[in-house]
Amino acid sequence: MLFFTQCFGAVLDLIHLRFQHYKAKRVFSAAGQLVCVVNPTHSLKYAPTRCAAAQTSVEQGVPPPCHHHEAVHDPQLVPCTCPLYSCPWEGHLEVVVSHLRQTHCINILQGAEIVFLATDMHLPAPTDWIIMHSCLGHQFLLVLRKQEKYEGHPQFFATMMLIGTPTQADNFTYRLELNRNQRRLKWEATPRSVLECVDSVISDGDCLVLNTSLAQLFSDNGSLAIGIAITTSKVHNAEAEM
Amino acid sequence: MLFFTQCFGAVLDLIHLRFQHYKAKRVFSAAGQLVCVVNPTHSLKYAPTRCAAAQTSVEQGVPPPCHHHEAVHDPQLVPCTCPLYSCPWEGHLEVVVSHLRQTHCINILQGAEIVFLATDMHLPAPTDWIIMHSCLGHQFLLVLRKQEKYEGHPQFFATMMLIGTPTQADNFTYRLELNRNQRRLKWEATPRSVLECVDSVISDGDCLVLNTSLAQLFSDNGSLAIGIAITTSKVHNAEAEM
Repeated sequence: MLFFTQCFGAVLDLIHLRFQHYKAKRVFSAAGQLVCVVNPTHSLKYAPTRCAAAQTSVEQGVPPPCHHHEAVHDPQLVPCTCPLYSCPWEGHLEVVVSHLRQTHCINILQGAEIVFLATDMHLPAPTDWIIMHSCLGHQFLLVLRKQEKYEGHPQFFATMMLIGTPTQADNFTYRLELNRNQRRLKWEATPRSVLECVDSVISDGDCLVLNTSLAQLFSDNGSLAIGIAITTSKVHNAEAEM
Repeated sequence: MLFFTQCFGAVLDLIHLRFQHYKAKRVFSAAGQLVCVVNPTHSLKYAPTRCAAAQTSVEQGVPPPCHHHEAVHDPQLVPCTCPLYSCPWEGHLEVVVSHLRQTHCINILQGAEIVFLATDMHLPAPTDWIIMHSCLGHQFLLVLRKQEKYEGHPQFFATMMLIGTPTQADNFTYRLELNRNQRRLKWEATPRSVLECVDSVISDGDCLVLNTSLAQLFSDNGSLAIGIAITTSKVHNAEAEM
């Protein structure tokens, strides 16, 4: 009996997911665009590191334990850049992606343009929605955060960070786009490097910022679809020419 | 001596204006785009009606006194739609534009695409920057408002209203664009009718909303350049086809 109940639950979940995919596709109306459903995670930055992060509803693996490194004092080592956990890991920039994938279970998606569908926008702050995006030979970290900068007034902050150096980041432009109900909001900027902390980008407000009321206008049934596109930066060249 | 001092002041003002025009043009890099410098006005909604509104630095005329109408109870009469003052005027929709121009000294600009350059963004809330925009055979009211929705945290709200009926407003799409320092923010929506109150549009947050930090990122020397474009709405048709 329990088995049948669970099966029925799984089927319902799949139908719900399918419906969300369909809705997000309809909103962006771009055939071939990958829609990724991203579930929220309560930010546990100062809690012990464990895997509860940014899983899609489909994949849920058991993570390996966090790798603790001895203090080596190698200047090429970078700390863990996961925005969710205070993790003692450090390693070379080249292995940050595999650390985020394996230890923090952050999914990675391929494609020049994807739709990030954040579910359960009503959950209380602080909450994060996180995914990695592989594009143009690099990996990017997309962070959507619900946070109360002013007590009692949660806001949504969305930004994209390059898993690379600031010099590499300067070569790209990312675009976040919300589109619903005859309203459209676009944010374009140069991604920051993950070597700069995502917390400071958000506290500086140098990202897409949404009040709760705007977030509700763009949400559909508690889910917010964000169209994401990354291009190699032409702004620099255009500005240099002017 | 006083005359020479005043002349010198006027020349300095003109040089400053010229420089602001040049900067705004450079930001938007669109040859032929009209740049309009808009000075702020403290919102005096519940103070007596007088002319202090939305004057450009160049033109400053002495306004005629407010026209008081007897209560006629004509259902076709609409109240004064000036966002700045609580004005007892009422009249037909066709004469709202001339009322706003003559009584509230709100300037009107022609052109499909204009740049609205709001000065003195640092002034304390509540402050409004207002202009009328004549385009595609209709007149629109552009309102930028600095307001403390949450005490101690001023935000900027920008919206465009059609001086016409809600049905007429549905035929248009307006776009507000900020572009500076390798960042770009675009808001596109259907304008509301001035028959709906601008205060309620702003309190609903159904407009372009900027935190102080984002407004500073897009400002140049205390002035914020907003690119404005109005088009006949194709969103409806596109959505209907989908």
